[in-house]
Amino acid sequence: MSNDDHLHIPPDASFSRRIPDQDDRERVVCNTCDYVIYENPKIVVGVVATWQEKILLVKREIEPRRGYWSLPAGYLELNETAEDGAAREAWEEARAKLTIDQILAVYSLPRISQIQIIYRAKLCNPDVSAGPESQEVTLFDWHNVPWQDLAFPTVGWALNQYHSIRDKNEFPTFTNPR
Amino acid sequence: MSNDDHLHIPPDASFSRRIPDQDDRERVVCNTCDYVIYENPKIVVGVVATWQEKILLVKREIEPRRGYWSLPAGYLELNETAEDGAAREAWEEARAKLTIDQILAVYSLPRISQIQIIYRAKLCNPDVSAGPESQEVTLFDWHNVPWQDLAFPTVGWALNQYHSIRDKNEFPTFTNPR
Ligand SMILES: [Zn+2]
Ligand SMILES: [Zn+2]
Repeated sequence: MSNDDHLHIPPDASFSRRIPDQDDRERVVCNTCDYVIYENPKIVVGVVATWQEKILLVKREIEPRRGYWSLPAGYLELNETAEDGAAREAWEEARAKLTIDQILAVYSLPRISQIQIIYRAKLCNPDVSAGPESQEVTLFDWHNVPWQDLAFPTVGWALNQYHSIRDKNEFPTFTNPR
Repeated sequence: MSNDDHLHIPPDASFSRRIPDQDDRERVVCNTCDYVIYENPKIVVGVVATWQEKILLVKREIEPRRGYWSLPAGYLELNETAEDGAAREAWEEARAKLTIDQILAVYSLPRISQIQIIYRAKLCNPDVSAGPESQEVTLFDWHNVPWQDLAFPTVGWALNQYHSIRDKNEFPTFTNPR
């Protein structure tokens, strides 16, 4: 739990892959000063956002899984809160304005070194439209969710978990389903 | 929400800092194949772990905040689930064996580009001891928590939020206190 990280890298730095002193695995290390660039798991932030009973999904314009349906979600950026990042992605991908309610789920995808933080959110209005990374955006009734054409397993997890607590004001955060 | 990232870095790779094609800022880029190492927000995982009513804290042996008390916590590693990372840190810092219960809190620290995921956990036994990054480890009664000597604000947030739900089986995950 260290607070002293900052981004090193003088313009002329070069890096190579080796095991730093007092470490036990290979890292990318500056050849001049031994600064280590740790490659870390990435954080994806997203939303299950609704208008009345309808759920916002976006059809992906980009690979992977172009043409399949996903939640508005993407990588958290530097100097951003998780909530702000989730709202930013909803705007970028679906031109959606929303209010974050609470954390629906935290998923671990260790094979791809990814943590996903998915929020439950309410749309401020039903006016949504495709951003540059989306082919299409739709507010789906539950019985019309395109289950066969979801982009990623986590989209289905989040939708089902959302559905199970849709009438609750408070609920414990979900994790990967068993 | 992309699943296609993977960690590059052949053993003989070298990297330098430059602006990749179609980007607008300097990145650390492989000199051979133009693979870009993006620097992303980091994930800290930790635990509020208890034995009976007592709460496990560790006195830091390392900077920053050497000599101050913290929760067992540290950076999530590649290819690790958040739960496994939290349990690993408890072992490394306090030689603690525990069972993760549920997610206590998700904090955003945008100034330092950090997301902290803190779990509630039960120690399997009270046999804890200092790991190499700790000066001391102690199981504190609530009224003996060293409030004046906590290492980071998030430690106090987590302790107070834990205390408020200590008798509940289920609770909504906390975020930064207002
Ligand atoms: Zn250097
Ligand atoms: Zn390369």
